[in-house]
Amino acid sequence: MTLKLYGAPMSSCTARALACLEEKEAKYETVPINLHGGEHKQPTHLARNPFGLIPALEDGDVTLFESRAISKYVAKKYKHSGTDLLRLGNEKESALVEVWLEVEGQQYSPHISPLVHQYIVVGGIYKQTPDEKVIAEETEKLAKVLDVYEARLSKSKYLAGDFYSLADLHHLPYTYYVMTTPVKKIFDARPHVKAWWTDISSRPASKKVTAGMKH
Amino acid sequence: MTLKLYGAPMSSCTARALACLEEKEAKYETVPINLHGGEHKQPTHLARNPFGLIPALEDGDVTLFESRAISKYVAKKYKHSGTDLLRLGNEKESALVEVWLEVEGQQYSPHISPLVHQYIVVGGIYKQTPDEKVIAEETEKLAKVLDVYEARLSKSKYLAGDFYSLADLHHLPYTYYVMTTPVKKIFDARPHVKAWWTDISSRPASKKVTAGMKH
Repeated sequence: MTLKLYGAPMSSCTARALACLEEKEAKYETVPINLHGGEHKQPTHLARNPFGLIPALEDGDVTLFESRAISKYVAKKYKHSGTDLLRLGNEKESALVEVWLEVEGQQYSPHISPLVHQYIVVGGIYKQTPDEKVIAEETEKLAKVLDVYEARLSKSKYLAGDFYSLADLHHLPYTYYVMTTPVKKIFDARPHVKAWWTDISSRPASKKVTAGMKH
Repeated sequence: MTLKLYGAPMSSCTARALACLEEKEAKYETVPINLHGGEHKQPTHLARNPFGLIPALEDGDVTLFESRAISKYVAKKYKHSGTDLLRLGNEKESALVEVWLEVEGQQYSPHISPLVHQYIVVGGIYKQTPDEKVIAEETEKLAKVLDVYEARLSKSKYLAGDFYSLADLHHLPYTYYVMTTPVKKIFDARPHVKAWWTDISSRPASKKVTAGMKH
């Protein structure tokens, strides 16, 4: 059964799911959703995702949404192929993957996503003036999160341990976008964070997905 | 091995982990962290959670943080006792649990947590004036999320299906607090959401945990 991913390659959340599909060497096809035409708010797509967001995944009679839930589903379904992203064979390692998955969702994403919105969406797509107050506040908060990352990555090569995991992968799309903005300097100022980013963004799966994110 | 949960019973995130420990009939002890004394920012606790937040869990040589990762660890470890919170025996059901866990983390929590902060922390604990602009904006956004929940809960008794799961449980602490505020009206106005809340908040594990949340 071929998985069907509904989304748009330049969407951060679509890219998150795509990166997992690529790492797992999954058999999938993508179905573009026309955001400019409002296709995501039409009944056909709302049946896939009641929040009217992308991406959504169809696997036979299973329809899923929320990029982080899609990637977990794919990582579990293809546990025997591609990169071992969840470390399910090791209770301690898989628990640490879950911890750092939640760190991304609850500590990192809330501060980096407004920066992506201001620079890439407001400034880049809508050609309006980004909100400098939001940018200053969220950059400061993200820098504090990166202090914790710097300490963590000085002890292990990746977030959950000395192995690339879904926790690292989930950081890819938003980080890719902010690295094209002045926020890049808070990553470059932290050597272990900088090395981690160079590493995870250079993976073949990462490069394939980010190549489709040009905006 | 007895699990050790470091936290404070009135903390929403500690309560989330406690509710899971109770549903799974896990053997655990709680270790209070003195927030007023700043114990969570001291080196001993920072070694458990580098963000200086609560809760943290110790299970022998495994130390975990992020309440949602702790609850998943407990639900997996005790998969054969208490309530079946993850439906690991059914690929489709467990995938839907993951979807609604992410909905709580990414769609629900970002709007309900500022309301808990304004009413319970700013107004209740610090006796200051809550920010009415934040309250109005976040209440409106939360109401839109509840519209999706209302439609969902008109088709299944709980969020992931006709079974109580970790996805429902994760909603408990923040919702418990906002139901003591004027925001309650947006829950009461949606009959399926109201019935769902009455159901999940009446479970013995829920009642035991919320009894410790009086502020």
